[in-house]
Amino acid sequence: MKTLPITLIGAGNVGTHLAKRLSEKGYRVVQVFSRDKAKAEALAETVGAVAIDQLSEVSSHDGLYLLAVRDDVIAETACRLSEAGISKGLFAHTSGATPASVLQPYAKRYGIFYPLQTFSPQRTPDFSEIPICVQASVQEDERLLTNIAEIIGKQAVVMEEQQRIALHVAAVFVNNFSNYLYQTGQRILEKEQLDFKLLLPLIRETAEKVRHLSPEAAQTGPAVRGDEKTIARHLAYLQEIPEEAKLYEMITKVIFSSRST
Amino acid sequence: MKTLPITLIGAGNVGTHLAKRLSEKGYRVVQVFSRDKAKAEALAETVGAVAIDQLSEVSSHDGLYLLAVRDDVIAETACRLSEAGISKGLFAHTSGATPASVLQPYAKRYGIFYPLQTFSPQRTPDFSEIPICVQASVQEDERLLTNIAEIIGKQAVVMEEQQRIALHVAAVFVNNFSNYLYQTGQRILEKEQLDFKLLLPLIRETAEKVRHLSPEAAQTGPAVRGDEKTIARHLAYLQEIPEEAKLYEMITKVIFSSRST
Repeated sequence: MKTLPITLIGAGNVGTHLAKRLSEKGYRVVQVFSRDKAKAEALAETVGAVAIDQLSEVSSHDGLYLLAVRDDVIAETACRLSEAGISKGLFAHTSGATPASVLQPYAKRYGIFYPLQTFSPQRTPDFSEIPICVQASVQEDERLLTNIAEIIGKQAVVMEEQQRIALHVAAVFVNNFSNYLYQTGQRILEKEQLDFKLLLPLIRETAEKVRHLSPEAAQTGPAVRGDEKTIARHLAYLQEIPEEAKLYEMITKVIFSSRST
Repeated sequence: MKTLPITLIGAGNVGTHLAKRLSEKGYRVVQVFSRDKAKAEALAETVGAVAIDQLSEVSSHDGLYLLAVRDDVIAETACRLSEAGISKGLFAHTSGATPASVLQPYAKRYGIFYPLQTFSPQRTPDFSEIPICVQASVQEDERLLTNIAEIIGKQAVVMEEQQRIALHVAAVFVNNFSNYLYQTGQRILEKEQLDFKLLLPLIRETAEKVRHLSPEAAQTGPAVRGDEKTIARHLAYLQEIPEEAKLYEMITKVIFSSRST
């Protein structure tokens, strides 16, 4: 199984962390492609692969081609690979929001390998905690991707298009949107010359709490209590920063109405 | 210092965790009041105090009266204590949203002791991580509260009314509102028969990331990228659940515009 050759297309956050983890777990990453030659080289060196910066240089094999590129260039990248004569391998992209079918014109074997986590250059994610969503046009490839996901991640979750989109939307809510709320918290504190660090224990506890309690059971605060006096006090405070006030009002309203249903 | 008698008014989440921590750190909790006798008894037993369920039974001393009661009954509780002849001690409430001045008619010495954390019955908070906001009408009492905060919590943060309100508003954003986003994530997953647990590693990493990166630097996703195709796909998915769609649209809009400023 681990003799399977893997070509990594893309050396961004997802590609980099995936390549490192695959290599760490004994997989054979044969080539790393990035338009940015220096990036390709840096990553290729780490994982013992060959760096390339032209898709025409991608070698043909019957293993896995992992397309860890921006959503809007997935189809184009698959097209170029196909033009370069890559026809036997399995093409899998790593995006939560892009249908598998964008690969279909360019490969007989195609699928998805989407790790549900936020990746950044500065942090090494704990892969042993990460669920990986897999999907494949061919059952045998689904088993192959499942196997890899189970070895490098926490679990493989085989799912359909609709479910993966749902998961990606949910991820936007809990990750991008929560992070924006942290940013809002920071802006409010800065206004009062208070250190954002004061909020870190609360942010951590909020995230940890839902490991043990459902978010519904964990909900506290003026909105769910319908505590109009406190809400009014908060809105009075926020009147100088109308964007934040609007956001506060809207979320308070939905929390309050979700409570009464 | 630790001979200071402390009376705990209220045996809810905040009162309970505070009383336990104070006692653990060697403070002398003399009485625990709750209208719910059983609650008062349970907590009093744990901390070696006397349980009472009538404010008229509160004993007079020159130590600390911690009012860990709901925001809307703080003033009334202080009034009752004053009527019961409690006049020498320091009255401090534990609310982030209520001005210290509501205590002023009822006590010469009054202040605030507000631990910035979310408390729930099921979880013992890590007090050594918690910043505690203090404020007092008398400088000596400010020192007293600061001292207690430094012993039971991570740090004391002396702040003014306006700053504390700001902090409380920020706490609502990062705690109550983020938790509501978790709830939204859960609802979306349930719709697709997916387990909420899939999101937990992402929720944790989102919270941990801002310990090392500013929320602004940590922001990723379609909104900040201005990735209209993905946003459209998400909104198409959300059209069956209009409340969530509205929330998605609004937060996406503010993230996008915060980016371009």
